[in-house]
Amino acid sequence: MSDVMQTILNHKSVRSFSADPLSKKQVQELVTAAQSASTSSFLQAYSIIGVSDPLVKKELSTYAGSQDYVVKNGHFFVFCADFYRHKEMAQNLRADISESIQGTEALLIGTIDASLAAQNLAIAAESMGLGICYIGGLRNNLAGVSASLGIPAHVLPLFGIAVGYPETVHEKKPRLPFASVYHENHYNVDKGTLNAHLEEYDRTIQSYYVNRTENTRNASWTQQTTDKLRVPRRAYMKDFIKQKGWAQH
Amino acid sequence: MSDVMQTILNHKSVRSFSADPLSKKQVQELVTAAQSASTSSFLQAYSIIGVSDPLVKKELSTYAGSQDYVVKNGHFFVFCADFYRHKEMAQNLRADISESIQGTEALLIGTIDASLAAQNLAIAAESMGLGICYIGGLRNNLAGVSASLGIPAHVLPLFGIAVGYPETVHEKKPRLPFASVYHENHYNVDKGTLNAHLEEYDRTIQSYYVNRTENTRNASWTQQTTDKLRVPRRAYMKDFIKQKGWAQH
Repeated sequence: MSDVMQTILNHKSVRSFSADPLSKKQVQELVTAAQSASTSSFLQAYSIIGVSDPLVKKELSTYAGSQDYVVKNGHFFVFCADFYRHKEMAQNLRADISESIQGTEALLIGTIDASLAAQNLAIAAESMGLGICYIGGLRNNLAGVSASLGIPAHVLPLFGIAVGYPETVHEKKPRLPFASVYHENHYNVDKGTLNAHLEEYDRTIQSYYVNRTENTRNASWTQQTTDKLRVPRRAYMKDFIKQKGWAQH
Repeated sequence: MSDVMQTILNHKSVRSFSADPLSKKQVQELVTAAQSASTSSFLQAYSIIGVSDPLVKKELSTYAGSQDYVVKNGHFFVFCADFYRHKEMAQNLRADISESIQGTEALLIGTIDASLAAQNLAIAAESMGLGICYIGGLRNNLAGVSASLGIPAHVLPLFGIAVGYPETVHEKKPRLPFASVYHENHYNVDKGTLNAHLEEYDRTIQSYYVNRTENTRNASWTQQTTDKLRVPRRAYMKDFIKQKGWAQH
């Protein structure tokens, strides 16, 4: 198996890093890797904010639910959908692009662009022997995150990635069965097939949770996932996004 | 430089493939790579539809603007944000998760999850010597795409990736300067700095377009990008998404 496939397949989120900072060179290599990803219509509608200041990390950690690894890591990256620079350059050219950049399509473009770049950064980091953890918890309080990072309108922070030298690495978590994620030519809506896959996966996940080295528990994926989704979260999102110039129409 | 970094940094979209199909084993390896990406709260809120049927490819190509490479490739993948399986399993458990999965936050989760998975697939494909091209053009007509692929409510097709054996490979397109995409600790809103970066980048891109081997032209990034954004596109998106059970609130 190639080094690339090995890196991709070995991915495990790391939630415990040493405090050793990444070098400027490492940060530059990681961001350059991120920038090499595809981007919708070559718009490059995203930005990356690297956080090294411990006070800023501390603030972000509070928003994200006080996770230690948002503070103690080698570097923290915040990925944002971004049409700020497009707005500026359109103003320079006396063009009106507000209809485009304030549409729901622009929200998709920015979110997809930022995510493709982020995953390149994640793979690049893991290939350097670093560990990573995505921090969606930043979306608990995007007003706070935006204030901490001085983020203007038309820029939407989406998630963070903590990167650093791993102190503890856990086992790889098994994913849904191939056949329940992959459909051929036609989406398979058959409930019998879906339920058979979910039962198979619940057995896999139960065995993983019982056998893993730390934090063992007895839980099925369908039950724990349904429990998570039973409680609506981040209900402020639509209003916040609109207020910041996104998805007006 | 490691093979992983080399693969990531060498990315170029390929828009001309041989008609040789990927093997079932290749498709399985690529999807397994996709599934290894991080996923928000372990929700795995995405699906992948592989398209091998030439008639379905032809339909998708029509929606995407009649691009040949949507038809002639080794395999075509459509990435979807997906809460269909969550809805089914909640019904089995007699739980109501509709508030969660119909929120704007769920749209972000599904879009981010699908994009992280997609980028893993893209890198994996390129590591196998295959070429890839993202096809955001599917969003020109998501009603058509959904009908062609039999996509139910709570599943949103976002983009495709054409994968195959490259017939022509172009030069790598230079990206925005590092310093205009990467900010440290604080978003830099300074217009003087931004404009200096954009001027530098316009010179880089002009030189790239003039010197590339095919399809040379004289264009600046700020001008061509502003021209693209001057014309609002896919204005139906908000209504379509709502109608399919997304971003109701």
